[in-house]
Amino acid sequence: MRMLSNRLASSFFSSYKYSSEVKSTVKIGDVLQQRKIFTDEDVVAYSKVSDDINPLHFDTECAHIAGFQDRLVHGMLVASLFPRIISSHFPGAVYVSQNLQFRQPVYVGDEIVGEVQAMNIRNFKTNYLVKFSTRCLKKGSLLVIDGEATAILPSLIMQ
Amino acid sequence: MRMLSNRLASSFFSSYKYSSEVKSTVKIGDVLQQRKIFTDEDVVAYSKVSDDINPLHFDTECAHIAGFQDRLVHGMLVASLFPRIISSHFPGAVYVSQNLQFRQPVYVGDEIVGEVQAMNIRNFKTNYLVKFSTRCLKKGSLLVIDGEATAILPSLIMQ
Repeated sequence: MRMLSNRLASSFFSSYKYSSEVKSTVKIGDVLQQRKIFTDEDVVAYSKVSDDINPLHFDTECAHIAGFQDRLVHGMLVASLFPRIISSHFPGAVYVSQNLQFRQPVYVGDEIVGEVQAMNIRNFKTNYLVKFSTRCLKKGSLLVIDGEATAILPSLIMQ
Repeated sequence: MRMLSNRLASSFFSSYKYSSEVKSTVKIGDVLQQRKIFTDEDVVAYSKVSDDINPLHFDTECAHIAGFQDRLVHGMLVASLFPRIISSHFPGAVYVSQNLQFRQPVYVGDEIVGEVQAMNIRNFKTNYLVKFSTRCLKKGSLLVIDGEATAILPSLIMQ
């Protein structure tokens, strides 16, 4: 993480003015959420682009034998909610790290709420290195994925 | 991670016989590799399925201003190489965790070698909890992503 921070930072921080006209605000504790229903079409499209054809995603019998109620959505597809949330609020965000623990299965058709919360903000010139806690929930409060992400964000208004 | 291990394990380990006829082999130190060129089409397809429209992936000028040579491939798309490699060698593998550090940019058109190496194997009945080191390289030896993954693998032949 530091390696990217140090290497990318030198070029990134020195010249990054892309979003200076689209300043977002952030403060420690801020929570951002987005929800998504993961459909059959999503699983097929993600399998094609990732070449990941694990039978647990396509074969109901295989999923049952493995002890699951239904076919699983790829964990990394569900986790794509985190950079989506961060970059939609902070266009031009550069991902530095992401840790993921897959705690409960996500089934095709499940509605998932992705949530990121700003935990730490380090400023540098007009840019910021922000650590987020990241989690996905279903059925209200059932934790399916948690972890942490760090991203370099372009110009912000610190609150 | 333990939470998933404990919860899923009870159903998973007790009944998972899916791959008993397709036994794969693994031992500590084993390295598995696959390579992929990430194309414009991949970036567009991934953006659609993830709803991640960060301009760094589509706007060359934005990428330049941010200090990059070209448009970036989504980091989580590059990281999808890891579960692809693991599940193609061990069909029915269940992902438990993945840590990712994005150390260098991956540009559209880059050829990336994904590599996983078995670091630790814990057996339980006919199934295994395996920790892998995971990394992506370009131009031979340039480290672009590294981290660790843990997965529950179905029946193996331990070497």
